[in-house]
Amino acid sequence: MSKALDEACYELALANRIIAHEGVLDGFGHVSMRHPDHPDRYLLSRSRSPELVEPADLLEFTLDSEPVGAPKAEFYGERVIHGCIYQARPDVHAVCHHHSQSILPFCVTGVALEPVFHMGPVMGQVVPMWDSRDEFGHTDLLVVKPEEGQSLARALGPHWMVLMRRHGATLAGRSVRELVFRTIYSHANAEIQLRSMMIGTISPLSAAERQRGEPRQLQPRPIGRAWEYWTTRLQKAGELPPRSASKPARSRPTKRAAPKPPKQRAAKRRSR
Amino acid sequence: MSKALDEACYELALANRIIAHEGVLDGFGHVSMRHPDHPDRYLLSRSRSPELVEPADLLEFTLDSEPVGAPKAEFYGERVIHGCIYQARPDVHAVCHHHSQSILPFCVTGVALEPVFHMGPVMGQVVPMWDSRDEFGHTDLLVVKPEEGQSLARALGPHWMVLMRRHGATLAGRSVRELVFRTIYSHANAEIQLRSMMIGTISPLSAAERQRGEPRQLQPRPIGRAWEYWTTRLQKAGELPPRSASKPARSRPTKRAAPKPPKQRAAKRRSR
Amino acid sequence: MSKALDEACYELALANRIIAHEGVLDGFGHVSMRHPDHPDRYLLSRSRSPELVEPADLLEFTLDSEPVGAPKAEFYGERVIHGCIYQARPDVHAVCHHHSQSILPFCVTGVALEPVFHMGPVMGQVVPMWDSRDEFGHTDLLVVKPEEGQSLARALGPHWMVLMRRHGATLAGRSVRELVFRTIYSHANAEIQLRSMMIGTISPLSAAERQRGEPRQLQPRPIGRAWEYWTTRLQKAGELPPRSASKPARSRPTKRAAPKPPKQRAAKRRSR
Amino acid sequence: MSKALDEACYELALANRIIAHEGVLDGFGHVSMRHPDHPDRYLLSRSRSPELVEPADLLEFTLDSEPVGAPKAEFYGERVIHGCIYQARPDVHAVCHHHSQSILPFCVTGVALEPVFHMGPVMGQVVPMWDSRDEFGHTDLLVVKPEEGQSLARALGPHWMVLMRRHGATLAGRSVRELVFRTIYSHANAEIQLRSMMIGTISPLSAAERQRGEPRQLQPRPIGRAWEYWTTRLQKAGELPPRSASKPARSRPTKRAAPKPPKQRAAKRRSR
Repeated sequence: MSKALDEACYELALANRIIAHEGVLDGFGHVSMRHPDHPDRYLLSRSRSPELVEPADLLEFTLDSEPVGAPKAEFYGERVIHGCIYQARPDVHAVCHHHSQSILPFCVTGVALEPVFHMGPVMGQVVPMWDSRDEFGHTDLLVVKPEEGQSLARALGPHWMVLMRRHGATLAGRSVRELVFRTIYSHANAEIQLRSMMIGTISPLSAAERQRGEPRQLQPRPIGRAWEYWTTRLQKAGELPPRSASKPARSRPTKRAAPKPPKQRAAKRRSR
Repeated sequence: MSKALDEACYELALANRIIAHEGVLDGFGHVSMRHPDHPDRYLLSRSRSPELVEPADLLEFTLDSEPVGAPKAEFYGERVIHGCIYQARPDVHAVCHHHSQSILPFCVTGVALEPVFHMGPVMGQVVPMWDSRDEFGHTDLLVVKPEEGQSLARALGPHWMVLMRRHGATLAGRSVRELVFRTIYSHANAEIQLRSMMIGTISPLSAAERQRGEPRQLQPRPIGRAWEYWTTRLQKAGELPPRSASKPARSRPTKRAAPKPPKQRAAKRRSR
Repeated sequence: MSKALDEACYELALANRIIAHEGVLDGFGHVSMRHPDHPDRYLLSRSRSPELVEPADLLEFTLDSEPVGAPKAEFYGERVIHGCIYQARPDVHAVCHHHSQSILPFCVTGVALEPVFHMGPVMGQVVPMWDSRDEFGHTDLLVVKPEEGQSLARALGPHWMVLMRRHGATLAGRSVRELVFRTIYSHANAEIQLRSMMIGTISPLSAAERQRGEPRQLQPRPIGRAWEYWTTRLQKAGELPPRSASKPARSRPTKRAAPKPPKQRAAKRRSR
Repeated sequence: MSKALDEACYELALANRIIAHEGVLDGFGHVSMRHPDHPDRYLLSRSRSPELVEPADLLEFTLDSEPVGAPKAEFYGERVIHGCIYQARPDVHAVCHHHSQSILPFCVTGVALEPVFHMGPVMGQVVPMWDSRDEFGHTDLLVVKPEEGQSLARALGPHWMVLMRRHGATLAGRSVRELVFRTIYSHANAEIQLRSMMIGTISPLSAAERQRGEPRQLQPRPIGRAWEYWTTRLQKAGELPPRSASKPARSRPTKRAAPKPPKQRAAKRRSR
């Protein structure tokens, strides 16, 4: 594996853990990136909670969401969300799907999510809403078939974030760091909008304010500043992913034994 | 004690601690399992906060909620909740009773708890509401008499979760892990429904969506994925229950001396 | 100092820290107990945040809230709250004054705080509301004069908790542990009532339910169970107060130098 | 560097970290102080999240917000907020700009923030609201031009806190400790007001209560008591800033290399 790919995998594991550590992802949801050397593939963890993802958990998939090689692992059921967006949007290099408690009230009520403070435009000018009932009727709400993923990608269109009725949100980014930034600050915007609606009538950003704010907030400096903050918080909590150097050999991850209740000794190593 | 029973007791102690660590249980409430070898008995901790429960705290009860043997311990006052459900429902192998701050607003107002996102159906198609006033008038609200436990079990009926007016919730599961999964995600559904009602009108899952979602979300993979997540979080917090191996001899737990203010040295061992 | 007094002081320091650690007290507020040997005196910390209180910080006051001896220390400005209640209520052995964010919405709006779940009656059948404007007009809202403390004690009357308009709450108990139990579960009741009012109309406990619930919930077993839970949580966080044994000599506490920014080495000792 | 300046820088780093650790600041926002020896300059960190600021990150700026010397560092884009207030208000010695989730609902709805409990008057008698649209039309909402900073300083006028529509808040203080106290308790007041509005009609402090409360609450004793509390909490979390003694030589900070993902070993040092 190339050094660049190694770094990319480490960054993707970091992204998984940061978004979980900042309270957006819980046991479910997932984060992927387009393969840095093969734009017709993407990298995504085996089926595992994002807070636990390590570089060695990452697998390669084609844009049809078929695994490359024959890894002995379980896959996320909803990986077509990722593949279909990478297919439809060559400018997208990272995708996150989550069910945060700040976003879901908008998905449950159908209230539009709008930029309400200066950081809001990082989620894009408009956040469309997709409803699985429109094309597929009454399902189990999961997005597992290619046509479901394609429908969602169409709803996303040229935007950066799409809400999913009674389900959650899917976000895209030009890079992993932009995606993490968008995911965390759209979550913050949702929480602020919800809290604002409890005490009065919201006055969201105007179209001109959104247009000016989006490029401004997505400059390298604010993204870098926040990235340093989130990685340091992860580090202080003892939650950084392990480096691949700690493994004797780097090979395609294989399915591990079913998780056993971990041993008490592990508590010595980590202390959050 | 058989090795299988040993593992079952460890899993039940884990379940107590996970549900507390994830913020559903506080100092009160309890979690039990049907005895793996004797379906006419169940295992439940002596009277102790769930976050502190160890395998050595577990006691055996008949389905009439009488202790097996004569353990020198104090018992939970509301253990009939468990016994009466195991009597009425042979398919139930684990029970949890709690008073979470996300569930209680529904119990206080009588607003129906409904599945509002894709994970919601894990609590069942319908969540009935039981009111102690209907059969027993104005009591202290605790469920301590056999007829009170039987009434609650009838209200639960064929469902998996029942709300209790001005009191809390009781949940059942086919296994300990399914119960933990249902308890934590019904709590999440309640919180999302509450937050949704603050900003608009909820649009819950349709009957067909509930029917399709329930079996899908209760497959072994999502339950196993969440179990790995929750046990790892417990481990990182230094909160795993002690293994029985750390005890010189494994015997029926006896009542311990009243808890003394613990010594400061213990702080070295754990560090959350 | 007698061994019994020593234990009492340790328990009072624990009470200060528990109520802070469970999120009811912040940097302000205070907790006292009647002197176990001299019922005409009470014990209260020098002016210091409750989370930091150690046994060595405790001072003796007469029921007129005058310090016994001439300790070189700063005193809480509002200690008459404690003295006036001990004067008016011989059955009271512990008092807490706080400003929790769950209680304050009731003090700011004048909405009545009512028992809404089975634990609610621990705060008493009725929670009266006191308004400093009624007798004293427009003050700085602090309770610092004897006549202000006496007015508050009259408002408390035979009850166990009194709300203070635009200020906070004061609670009394027959013992330190009963006080801690009442303080934490009235805070929980307030939070549940507030959250319930966001989604519907509350249906509080009936008068009969309150009368039956109060003695039931204040039995030694539930109080002891919660006390073990809270002290263990404090212990796991490394927050237990130091034992006096760690001091070379036990004497009346004297004023210490103004707090300096603590040294980094301390971080090794504690790790929350 | 003088010993006094050394202490001042350490206190400013502490202030940054305290306000972040208490949940008011996140990855963005900033805290400055007027230079203790040169009242025509102020001290502010290089562009970095407040929770991470160390004394070595602090830079000097003229009141026109130009850096003194030619430090190789990136600067906060919105530092004119600080310079313009120091220019307009000789009595101000410390400034904080933040976007807390308790304050923002007032900025999004235009609802007035008012003192609702006894600590509320620390934010001043009145909290004005500034809207960038009034003078500058539809911008990206950031305050980066001198005329924008001057407009904000005019809106602040003789007060101590100003809300910024769709953006956040800016606060001033006579000292760093007064500023920290005001920032944290205005945040608490906002949260209490918001929660109160969810259950009823607020009854804020009268003008006379505000006038009496402000000087009372800003006495050295309550500020010192809270300062001891917050620094101790920071210490217990292992989050105190490093002392300059840990550096071989103390010189003007230079730009460091872009933050790399920190190494796992650091986790041994800190353990929150």
